[in-house]
Amino acid sequence: MAENKNTQLMEKIVSLAKRRGFIFQSSEIYGGINGFWDYGPYGARMKRAVEQLWWREMVETRDNVEGLDSTIICHPKVWKASGHLDQFSDEMCDCRECKARHRVDQMENPEVCPNCGSKDLTEPREFNLMMKTFVGPVFDEDHAAYLRAETCQPIFVDFHNVRVAARQKLPFGIAQIGKAFRNEINPRNFTFRSREFTQMEMEFFCDEAEGMEWYEYWKGQRIKYYREKLGFTDDFMKIHDHEKLAHYAKAALDIEVKFPFGWGELEGVHHRGTWDMSRHQEFSGQDMQYMDHDNKRKVMPTVIETSVGLDRTILALLCNAYDEDTAETQKEGKATDVRTVLRFPALVAPVQIAVLPLSKKLSESAKELYNDLNRHFRSEFDVTGSIGKRYRRQDEIGTPFCITYDFESAEDNSVTVRHRDSMQQERVNVTQLRSYIEERIGY
Amino acid sequence: MAENKNTQLMEKIVSLAKRRGFIFQSSEIYGGINGFWDYGPYGARMKRAVEQLWWREMVETRDNVEGLDSTIICHPKVWKASGHLDQFSDEMCDCRECKARHRVDQMENPEVCPNCGSKDLTEPREFNLMMKTFVGPVFDEDHAAYLRAETCQPIFVDFHNVRVAARQKLPFGIAQIGKAFRNEINPRNFTFRSREFTQMEMEFFCDEAEGMEWYEYWKGQRIKYYREKLGFTDDFMKIHDHEKLAHYAKAALDIEVKFPFGWGELEGVHHRGTWDMSRHQEFSGQDMQYMDHDNKRKVMPTVIETSVGLDRTILALLCNAYDEDTAETQKEGKATDVRTVLRFPALVAPVQIAVLPLSKKLSESAKELYNDLNRHFRSEFDVTGSIGKRYRRQDEIGTPFCITYDFESAEDNSVTVRHRDSMQQERVNVTQLRSYIEERIGY
Repeated sequence: MAENKNTQLMEKIVSLAKRRGFIFQSSEIYGGINGFWDYGPYGARMKRAVEQLWWREMVETRDNVEGLDSTIICHPKVWKASGHLDQFSDEMCDCRECKARHRVDQMENPEVCPNCGSKDLTEPREFNLMMKTFVGPVFDEDHAAYLRAETCQPIFVDFHNVRVAARQKLPFGIAQIGKAFRNEINPRNFTFRSREFTQMEMEFFCDEAEGMEWYEYWKGQRIKYYREKLGFTDDFMKIHDHEKLAHYAKAALDIEVKFPFGWGELEGVHHRGTWDMSRHQEFSGQDMQYMDHDNKRKVMPTVIETSVGLDRTILALLCNAYDEDTAETQKEGKATDVRTVLRFPALVAPVQIAVLPLSKKLSESAKELYNDLNRHFRSEFDVTGSIGKRYRRQDEIGTPFCITYDFESAEDNSVTVRHRDSMQQERVNVTQLRSYIEERIGY
Repeated sequence: MAENKNTQLMEKIVSLAKRRGFIFQSSEIYGGINGFWDYGPYGARMKRAVEQLWWREMVETRDNVEGLDSTIICHPKVWKASGHLDQFSDEMCDCRECKARHRVDQMENPEVCPNCGSKDLTEPREFNLMMKTFVGPVFDEDHAAYLRAETCQPIFVDFHNVRVAARQKLPFGIAQIGKAFRNEINPRNFTFRSREFTQMEMEFFCDEAEGMEWYEYWKGQRIKYYREKLGFTDDFMKIHDHEKLAHYAKAALDIEVKFPFGWGELEGVHHRGTWDMSRHQEFSGQDMQYMDHDNKRKVMPTVIETSVGLDRTILALLCNAYDEDTAETQKEGKATDVRTVLRFPALVAPVQIAVLPLSKKLSESAKELYNDLNRHFRSEFDVTGSIGKRYRRQDEIGTPFCITYDFESAEDNSVTVRHRDSMQQERVNVTQLRSYIEERIGY
């Protein structure tokens, strides 16, 4: 029963996301392409807002974190050094009968083809999840290159270039936001497991002796961010400490959130030791150590990583925000109606303010107010339909403040601010409006 | 001589870009990868600033333009419809002797191998510039996919999804910013011709009858943007009207700027007629027309495109900003010294304000001021070295305002603002500092 309800909830979210322009199937008119999703007008606004929030939080407000924006295609040796070329794979087998290919860990019976029932299967083989392409005029192994499977490797590779240019000393971090690609055999759960996605990663370089201290620091910072900026509460978010660690790792945890399809990883905080920098030193032949002039010794930097999925953050925000309640209606024969509302934090809502003239006659003055507010907040102007209908439209995309410009507004220089969650209304003077909204958004 | 000087200038720009953390060769520790460039701390800041400026200008301040953020990998039929799979190619030939491959239009004598001098060459063949990969578990032609060669095609494909979700009517536009890839045979001129780059494109959909009007409108808007926001003057920028048009196009122009290596395209403004939408209708079998309810007729939307290279914009800004002049120095035996200065418009400078305490003893109070300013402007705090050395450092990255916090500052609550271009200094009260800077940045 609970599972049914969750499936239904997920369906509602996917449907709302499409209808209201958050997320579409990529290339839909061509039948779509599995595991690829486009962000529509409201989705793109929100993606930009969350991206900027993370960047502000992790780079702009910190003197010890620098930004980077590296290419998706790197030198193939980067992926040899990272281990992706040799180990980033799933076990697959082919059916000799129907030619279908299957992921072994997802077969109920690994000796029977789930497609045709044949038992004539090949031995399992490793299938690499990196997407391969060719750079240059010849398509052979010498010209093979890969779409990055994570955004962190170019950070390690560019460590010295960034350090020298930014005049940084240990400890300091490098952050970047960008696309990554994984040829998932079975993309699923809407945008949760997709083949093209955006990561926001920060690698913090420090002395080995301070590794655990910084790991705890970044763990704390990231949890604080989810609580204070994205409004995730303890029933929606949990920490999952890894019991099994990669051989090189010193500590690792996932920050998980409660999607309708179950708990899922949103962010990883990993103490990776000196593994990454040592590997790139080994494979590039370059000295990746840091010269500690104060203590007159070279150290191989230890890495603490915080790695978030931007698409998963948007999905988490959508799932956490989705709600239905009852609202007054003017529909015939009914006093109340089911209202769909996205309870986004105002900081990341795609539309923060909707300006709604009560009548088309008031459009001109209301538009002036809108133009002014739009310089400071993500704003929308809507004059079509009854005021109730317009409120409902804004509720559905999660607009926290609807501002109604009415026939008294010109006289008393005031407007009505209607709050999405409480549906309460307040009269506010136009001269105070900006600071009134700023306070409530929490800039 | 002039050519020599320009080559030297370009070398200086490339060298400064690397040294000061604007742009690095991608994967440098592995010997680099030709045609791929990473943005370092200052480059990434600037890229974000220009991107946000364009987005604000083209989307956020316009009610008739919607944003989109689509995937890099689309359904392969998108590129069949666009013509890229069949026609986006260069002519290549192979040398049977030394096995080298050459672009025919770049050979001085198309019958002689430029590598070994042999005349045993294959016939020229078409070489497609799209980067190919495979999606799904089997690597055959049925699973081939391509990295997008331009960001506009997914805009056409998503036209109806965006239109319905955003409740738009013709005329309106859809804009997006994102990566695109071209397997250039001969990447050159620093970031100008690279294999991975970021485009900022806006497709404006209108009735055929209004096409030329909107073409002129967008031409005007885009020129105004370069003049007013990026500070490009008429000796740096020119319009190149296309004399030869694609068979479907009604009008086209390039906005070109004067790079040290010659005039180069920065942006294209194209009147593409109904070509794109008709092709996607033909290849998808979906109705791509727009129902004009007012006039009770269906129209195939006409497209006006504005398409900018973000990397080229950054390169143009760097080239336009680079300057050398003389400044006072405290070096022994010299009164003046050559100063390298990037004269960026304050709106897009990677660092807008540098806060410089005159002495380390003043660090604490100066840091407070910095923290406050950093909430509103891209700011940097620097306490290392003589004040002259710190000015020079900021000049080199184009910081328009250096704010010196000195021993009187605590008493008179004032600081000295030093202007990058004039090197003039002004005493400004801290309470007025924010509006003083805002006015001069032109927010």
